[in-house]
Amino acid sequence: MTYFVTTPEHTRFLLETVGELSKTLELPAHQRTTMDLSFAILEEAEKFATNILAPLNVKGDKQGSQRNDNGSVKTPDGFADAYQKFTEMGWNSATVSGDLGGQGLPYTLNVALQELWQGANMAFALCPLLTQGAIELLNHYGDDEQKLDYLPWIVSGQWTATMCMTEPQAGSDVGAIRTSATANGDHYLIKGSKIYITYGEHDMAENILHLVLARLPDAPAGAKGISLFIVPKFMLNKDGSLGARNDVVCASLEHKLGIHGSPTATIVFGEKTGAIGYLVGEPHQGLRAMFTMMNSARLAVGIQGIAQGAQALAHAKYFAAERVQGKAVGQTTPCSIDKHPDIRRVLLNSQAQIDGLRGLAFYIGRQMDIAHAHTDERTRKNATALVDLLIPVIKAHGTDSGIHVVNQCLQVFGGMGFVEETGIAQRLRDVRITAIYEGTNGIQANDLITRKVLLQEGGVLHAFFAEIMECCSAVHDAPHHVLKAPSIAIQEAVRQLDLVSLWVRKMHDKSAHDDSVLNSLLFHAAHYMELFGLVCQGYMLLHAAHSGLQKLDSYSQSFVEERIKMVVYFSRYLLPKAMMLSQMIISEQE
Amino acid sequence: MTYFVTTPEHTRFLLETVGELSKTLELPAHQRTTMDLSFAILEEAEKFATNILAPLNVKGDKQGSQRNDNGSVKTPDGFADAYQKFTEMGWNSATVSGDLGGQGLPYTLNVALQELWQGANMAFALCPLLTQGAIELLNHYGDDEQKLDYLPWIVSGQWTATMCMTEPQAGSDVGAIRTSATANGDHYLIKGSKIYITYGEHDMAENILHLVLARLPDAPAGAKGISLFIVPKFMLNKDGSLGARNDVVCASLEHKLGIHGSPTATIVFGEKTGAIGYLVGEPHQGLRAMFTMMNSARLAVGIQGIAQGAQALAHAKYFAAERVQGKAVGQTTPCSIDKHPDIRRVLLNSQAQIDGLRGLAFYIGRQMDIAHAHTDERTRKNATALVDLLIPVIKAHGTDSGIHVVNQCLQVFGGMGFVEETGIAQRLRDVRITAIYEGTNGIQANDLITRKVLLQEGGVLHAFFAEIMECCSAVHDAPHHVLKAPSIAIQEAVRQLDLVSLWVRKMHDKSAHDDSVLNSLLFHAAHYMELFGLVCQGYMLLHAAHSGLQKLDSYSQSFVEERIKMVVYFSRYLLPKAMMLSQMIISEQE
Repeated sequence: MTYFVTTPEHTRFLLETVGELSKTLELPAHQRTTMDLSFAILEEAEKFATNILAPLNVKGDKQGSQRNDNGSVKTPDGFADAYQKFTEMGWNSATVSGDLGGQGLPYTLNVALQELWQGANMAFALCPLLTQGAIELLNHYGDDEQKLDYLPWIVSGQWTATMCMTEPQAGSDVGAIRTSATANGDHYLIKGSKIYITYGEHDMAENILHLVLARLPDAPAGAKGISLFIVPKFMLNKDGSLGARNDVVCASLEHKLGIHGSPTATIVFGEKTGAIGYLVGEPHQGLRAMFTMMNSARLAVGIQGIAQGAQALAHAKYFAAERVQGKAVGQTTPCSIDKHPDIRRVLLNSQAQIDGLRGLAFYIGRQMDIAHAHTDERTRKNATALVDLLIPVIKAHGTDSGIHVVNQCLQVFGGMGFVEETGIAQRLRDVRITAIYEGTNGIQANDLITRKVLLQEGGVLHAFFAEIMECCSAVHDAPHHVLKAPSIAIQEAVRQLDLVSLWVRKMHDKSAHDDSVLNSLLFHAAHYMELFGLVCQGYMLLHAAHSGLQKLDSYSQSFVEERIKMVVYFSRYLLPKAMMLSQMIISEQE
Repeated sequence: MTYFVTTPEHTRFLLETVGELSKTLELPAHQRTTMDLSFAILEEAEKFATNILAPLNVKGDKQGSQRNDNGSVKTPDGFADAYQKFTEMGWNSATVSGDLGGQGLPYTLNVALQELWQGANMAFALCPLLTQGAIELLNHYGDDEQKLDYLPWIVSGQWTATMCMTEPQAGSDVGAIRTSATANGDHYLIKGSKIYITYGEHDMAENILHLVLARLPDAPAGAKGISLFIVPKFMLNKDGSLGARNDVVCASLEHKLGIHGSPTATIVFGEKTGAIGYLVGEPHQGLRAMFTMMNSARLAVGIQGIAQGAQALAHAKYFAAERVQGKAVGQTTPCSIDKHPDIRRVLLNSQAQIDGLRGLAFYIGRQMDIAHAHTDERTRKNATALVDLLIPVIKAHGTDSGIHVVNQCLQVFGGMGFVEETGIAQRLRDVRITAIYEGTNGIQANDLITRKVLLQEGGVLHAFFAEIMECCSAVHDAPHHVLKAPSIAIQEAVRQLDLVSLWVRKMHDKSAHDDSVLNSLLFHAAHYMELFGLVCQGYMLLHAAHSGLQKLDSYSQSFVEERIKMVVYFSRYLLPKAMMLSQMIISEQE
């Protein structure tokens, strides 16, 4: 087994500093939760991840999910039991409000929980991840009867839920879907095939609630003609018992590069009689509804990238400290390979990236808590906008960096990295999907550069940049000088990003009259995304080092020194890419 | 099947320009080969790769090599037949001189052949790759009797060969090996276990010649006490027939991330009676001998990275031109995804990298031909030194870039990239090993920065830089202006690399008195490697564009324009990283 509850101390630190958990716990919605309780919950979650989920990670990969001839799906041995325990302990509904039967925990704390689940067993943790999104969606868009009928089942986890969007001709272009829905008495009949349905069929829960995008007969073409339907696998009787099997069939499972434990299904709706479905929300408004669950799903996928990267790093560190090979400079006896400068560089490089991203995840978690639970409407609104801005960044930059980190940590193992027994190869196979699903990273970059940058006419962006500059100033004014160089570098990077963002908005104005301008802009979408992500990481690392120096009473000297080391490394060896990217984009103006 | 004989025209172009094949064919050793014959051979090889090797690529991956209970190994269906055909056609001995029964083809042409084999079926092509190295080694270090006895079998391919270096405690640190050899009459008895032995056991040929590193009883400690032995699987009778089975056992095969078709064996020598072996060359000089085959093996591994990258790119281009999804800017109907700027960027980015690396491989091939066959000794010596300088670059930068390209091309496929049926996921799994075996890329970077930079007191480096500057000047003086900006950028990058190289040599001087200086230097090994690799790629792309403009009589306008497009893209979007890296290293001086 190769699972590491990486850095409980670092998690606690992030919750206390950038996550501002104590502030969230002062909000009326969270007053029953205390810091102590939060840390106790976290400790329980660490145990669950370590003892229940992690041991199934390699096993699940080897065995995979298998489809039987009758269309049923057998998940790997142990998954169903683990799921049972997971829901019994209430992990399934961590952030769901108490009124709905959930735990009502802050999103910030849930970032820590997600990191544990996704690092321990990503293939397993995908299942509750999707159910959580469905709970949010139904709670927002379901009518009272739907909420009453269906929410309790998915909140308790007795049923799981899916998101049925993709069709063979409709991947990133969701507007191209063809699955149809026709009215039939009190319900609709759904017909069509959906692909890439995560946990579309399985044996871990008694029922599955499919959330299906389909077109009504009178639907306008494209994305504006898509409606959303509840399609249960088994119908629900009035008395709450399970009724007849709906006309929903798992036609096949994909053979994938990774996450073998999770069944990725092709689901055929209504091949025989039509699958019975119920409209959620208004007709033709399905995409808007589906996208409400996107923010938390995309944050969770970003966390998958970060968690897998963090696990790979912890494993590589452990290995490098044990593996004796070659002699360090000036030494006459063999040493552990973490004494070799190139290995040291890889480990530092990985940690700087992961630490920065972890900070960003907790920062976003905090903003989500404000957006959901703050008493001041304007504050809620601003936080919502900031979350909207940063979600594509954590999703794309978090997963791109996570993949990069896993890949370079695999290299630390030498030949053993290529051998499946070591476990690191599975992480590379698993993490690769994170850049693809929940909107490819290309789509995220387009979202950032064409929409998010323009939020409140750039006001959201500017407020965020101003906040980073403020942090840099605070560091300048602080008595310690060790952070001066990094803070100057980060300040400069923000200035560059600001300049580039100005250029982006100018290009938008011009593009109204000239398509080629928009094409030029989109060509730089990925560059802009990486630039933006690097600045966020730098900010978070500086924030951590600065906070650490103020918390020497409750954290050890070495812990704080590590925070400083990270921002120093980052500003020297990773942040220069931000300058390079901004030059690259800006020079196009000339 | 997803195999693409990518760019026969580009191959021909590289052979004619940077590969200077016609000049090689003027050398006495190659006078029987003509350009026409070379191209005819290439065409045959394209057919063989397409019709015989490529169809076994996915099948071999699925089936894998399997060890039977008796220790024998079954390679995937079709591999043995394909190997038979491969050797019958003489591909096994392409570069082996005619005196030894080989084809005596130039190394430059062999670069093109290797790219075909390694792109079509890397798991298969590994087998002859290793045999080729063994032929070189035996020809250099074997005594007359050994050459007479063993060379014909491996030249014809009736036997294959292995390289038995690694042991569990001796990976990158070859000096730590423990396998022992004790004299016993006319032979030695070898005892010990070797791991990661590629094609260490299989059913494709009647016999296997193991080249084994082991220690004699009186051996000095470390790398200076290692000797090299021939250890045949079946002994050779005086009459040339196969004799008794040697005490050599395949104990297990590895479960690997990729190259499933190729068996990677743990081989136990001499568990019962001691395995009979014969000393090759002088006692304790085994590593030197083994390293003579390293240059061509490392070039071949670099080509594996490039070939897999080229295949991934060709597949992604093909897919992106077919896959309709979303609307291009300003259009009202759906378009193929290669019209989307972000996909266009990925394809350009991949091609610029691959084209530059292909150029470098042919450039090195040409230098190898000079080193082996030129009539002037001084010219041979200089070419040998240049090959020594560039081998770590093509190995490490070629495979790092190849992995990067495969990874970003997989992304073009969206969800289909993660599904094994598409074929691109296998390329990612296969190519990942290239950064690890034949000396990890970390080892290559150390080799470059600690040894190769110092060759002839930096003279080799300088001559190479001067050559690039000359090419830039020639471009300046040319009547066409389209290459001015790229050539200026490349010139500047060479200047930076030159400055950094000066710093590297200074650090070496200082390090004699200060271990920490050497540690600082080694910390930058990977940065220096990437900087060096980028400059090489830029040079090759500029060379290609410049040569193309001079060859408009024999190549189409669009072909030449593509060469220009590549160097323009590269200098704008990839070369800036060279400037960033040099700044990063140089700033450490301050």
